Amino acid sequence: MVKKISHIGIAVKDLNEAIKFYESLGLKLEAIEEVPSQKVRVAFLPIGEVRIELLEATDEDSPIAKFIEKKGEGVQHIAFQVDDLPEKLQKVEESDIRLIDKEPRPGAHGADIAFLHPKSTHGTLIEFCQEKH
Amino acid sequence: MVKKISHIGIAVKDLNEAIKFYESLGLKLEAIEEVPSQKVRVAFLPIGEVRIELLEATDEDSPIAKFIEKKGEGVQHIAFQVDDLPEKLQKVEESDIRLIDKEPRPGAHGADIAFLHPKSTHGTLIEFCQEKH
Repeated sequence: MVKKISHIGIAVKDLNEAIKFYESLGLKLEAIEEVPSQKVRVAFLPIGEVRIELLEATDEDSPIAKFIEKKGEGVQHIAFQVDDLPEKLQKVEESDIRLIDKEPRPGAHGADIAFLHPKSTHGTLIEFCQEKH
Repeated sequence: MVKKISHIGIAVKDLNEAIKFYESLGLKLEAIEEVPSQKVRVAFLPIGEVRIELLEATDEDSPIAKFIEKKGEGVQHIAFQVDDLPEKLQKVEESDIRLIDKEPRPGAHGADIAFLHPKSTHGTLIEFCQEKH
């Protein structure tokens, strides 16, 4: 059903400092994008077939600010790449997995995304992500 | 310096239930291994060039049990694949990044591993992993 890992979303307090750290490991910054609907600034750092996405809150109401308040900085979600997101969401619901988003919504990088509910995934916030081609 | 993501380590309370969930997403269980030095049972589920490693504590002293107590179930570490682990650890130390393991030690799957200190990595527990060929 899922094809590969699209990206790993990591909540950080200071985007520029976090970028410097991952650059010191040899990753290269591809782009920085603001996603106003999520109140977040995102830095994309590809590595192999996966991307690290560093997420910085732009507002104290942001899901990223709330995550850091509760759990500290660290991995906030894992995104799996899928084809035909609406069909995959229907299949997931049929397996009694709870969804946060019953319908796809726009994410960073022009992708359509939807989140599964961590209560159904053994604690990990999982995103399904259909990338634009 | 790092080549690709080797695996994502996810702390779970019930390994068998968590395996069932990831199988429902389409991942296939490759193997289950016990790592007594870490007091952990590990399930390996490859996806693309990456592996999901589900980690269940075998003792209340296990780092995984402590992680779940503090933060709940979820992603516990990200492992980057490297060549020549001792050389990479030296380079990392020269960049003033703190290490948990100054020397490689044996991990699951016959790999040599070392952890970077989350205080130096913006919160994420990062493993360097030199896989056996």
